Amino acid sequence: MSPRLDAAGNLRGLRPGSVSGSAVLYLGSHIDTVPDAGAFDGVLGVVLAIALVKALGEHPLPFAVEVLAFSEEEGVRFGVPFIGSRALVGTIDSELLNRLDSAGITVAQAIRDFGLDPAGLPAAKLPAATLGYLEFHIEQGAVLEDLDLPLGIVTSIAGQSRFELLFTGQANHAGTTPRGRRRDALAGAAEWIGCVEREAVTAPDLRATVGQLEVRPGTSNVIPASVYATLDLRHALDSVRSEAAASLLDAGNRIARRRGLDFHSEQRLDQPAIPLDPELICALERAVTRSGSPVHRMVSGAGHDAMIMARSCPAAMLFLRSPGGVSHQTEESVLPEDVASALAAGAEFLKEAESMYA
Amino acid sequence: MSPRLDAAGNLRGLRPGSVSGSAVLYLGSHIDTVPDAGAFDGVLGVVLAIALVKALGEHPLPFAVEVLAFSEEEGVRFGVPFIGSRALVGTIDSELLNRLDSAGITVAQAIRDFGLDPAGLPAAKLPAATLGYLEFHIEQGAVLEDLDLPLGIVTSIAGQSRFELLFTGQANHAGTTPRGRRRDALAGAAEWIGCVEREAVTAPDLRATVGQLEVRPGTSNVIPASVYATLDLRHALDSVRSEAAASLLDAGNRIARRRGLDFHSEQRLDQPAIPLDPELICALERAVTRSGSPVHRMVSGAGHDAMIMARSCPAAMLFLRSPGGVSHQTEESVLPEDVASALAAGAEFLKEAESMYA
Repeated sequence: MSPRLDAAGNLRGLRPGSVSGSAVLYLGSHIDTVPDAGAFDGVLGVVLAIALVKALGEHPLPFAVEVLAFSEEEGVRFGVPFIGSRALVGTIDSELLNRLDSAGITVAQAIRDFGLDPAGLPAAKLPAATLGYLEFHIEQGAVLEDLDLPLGIVTSIAGQSRFELLFTGQANHAGTTPRGRRRDALAGAAEWIGCVEREAVTAPDLRATVGQLEVRPGTSNVIPASVYATLDLRHALDSVRSEAAASLLDAGNRIARRRGLDFHSEQRLDQPAIPLDPELICALERAVTRSGSPVHRMVSGAGHDAMIMARSCPAAMLFLRSPGGVSHQTEESVLPEDVASALAAGAEFLKEAESMYA
Repeated sequence: MSPRLDAAGNLRGLRPGSVSGSAVLYLGSHIDTVPDAGAFDGVLGVVLAIALVKALGEHPLPFAVEVLAFSEEEGVRFGVPFIGSRALVGTIDSELLNRLDSAGITVAQAIRDFGLDPAGLPAAKLPAATLGYLEFHIEQGAVLEDLDLPLGIVTSIAGQSRFELLFTGQANHAGTTPRGRRRDALAGAAEWIGCVEREAVTAPDLRATVGQLEVRPGTSNVIPASVYATLDLRHALDSVRSEAAASLLDAGNRIARRRGLDFHSEQRLDQPAIPLDPELICALERAVTRSGSPVHRMVSGAGHDAMIMARSCPAAMLFLRSPGGVSHQTEESVLPEDVASALAAGAEFLKEAESMYA
């Protein structure tokens, strides 16, 4: 492969096709991590892509293969994920380039400090002759482990809503305020969290999480005056997600009204579900079957570069089982035999592609 | 009155009795405040005591009256309340004297920096010939307002338990972790807070408050791994309070077990209820009746200097209605007519004392 670094810091290795000017099939994932991460989130997909190209040896293909090692998927430094893959689909705008990290350095400056030139970003974009993108990634969940399966074919990336909520009551003395006089924001928020748990049971694979909760004034002998909370909702069907959101905001309002609290909500994210490419999914199914692994289709609850790439080209994803469902922790792991299964499936996928793109 | 500052910074004004060496009746409250406090918590009781002495004019009494303006009741600076009144009952020990404020200054040093000498603390103690202590204080709750009463006679200070609790689950991805795999510490804590609310209904005047809650890691897209919470329980009967505590710790354990969480609790405070003096309570009842106000006996849900003084002498307290039940806020207030009622009751109380201690 001939390697290069594009203007977004993505490391790319091109294996030319058998004829010059061949269309390109992309394989890859990201190589950045969250702090205190494990050793497999992202980089495993890059290593698998390189191994697949290596396994091809001198075998000529009617298309070029480019391995992509995306620079910045997690969004740790600038609070915005997918900067690397956004360069490929051409959605890095000036707002993103001017975004600051905690030290006040812009994305554009960080690119320059790394020895690259933001002016080169247009050249990082996918060419017209793009066949598709395949990403291998650890599942980062326990669905495959629970089913005792090595691999999962991702059919879509779940849509995601994020809300910020504020329950407001009145601070008061914990010892002197009788029951009927209490406007306890935390008691109201706690009742609402019960509703969130019950809502998650109303649809299969609906995920509803309150991950953040801040109590003010937060003193053991003072009735809480306000509670700030976040709500994270995910589902493969946007209608299921928006119905759950409406139901939970309604519950928040009802609980607050009954308790004499104020309830305020703001939606911070409304990201639709992204279906992956049906043709590539079928090719991946055939490849997995031929390689001897069972086929399991599943929805990804997390966002991935494949979700960004799907805006500009057919995209597909293959998940590898995550032991214990653990990710974003040093205990993150993957089974060697599952890596072998993914490699075998990937080799079969390239054969599928050879006939598809002949 | 002849004023003096004792070694704990309490400002004291002595009105001698008609014979030298008379026993002393104490009247007072505290003059420190919480930050952003109102204008009445504490100091109103001192001003009322001074006004009562002033109203006596030249009238001779068979006992001395000392007005006490306690230096440090709220415990803001050193995290320990009642330092002023503890000097009167002789319970300022070396542990308290060595306690540090946030700047690393000890209580002993703060006393010296104020120009006083901790070696003089023993001289601050109540003399053997102490008749009793009467404190006027705003209610800091809404019981009197709800009953449309100006005054309340405190029969006891509620006992108080304080617990620190920790629910521990497992941090995990909000999008990829299926229902059955979640060990959500916040969902467990929220269910338990519902139990706390229901427990508070099991006994009249039981107060149960979760005032502090800290969620880790506290990120919108991560299932909470742990929740730290506080529990504040108060009741006039220690048995009611300890039964509520046992029931709520049991609920925490049950909820945690069912959800695959760990539950850990530590008791940080177990302060028994303090009954005030029956004889002084009767005298106060007669005084309130004679002054033309209705008698209402009540429990104080908050701690007061009277609770400390009760360890060494007969103690009594008279509450004044708190409009809106508001305290520890700048909106804290008191009605002028209630202050007049308290003054009238106080004058009658001194007449009662005159016959009691003749």
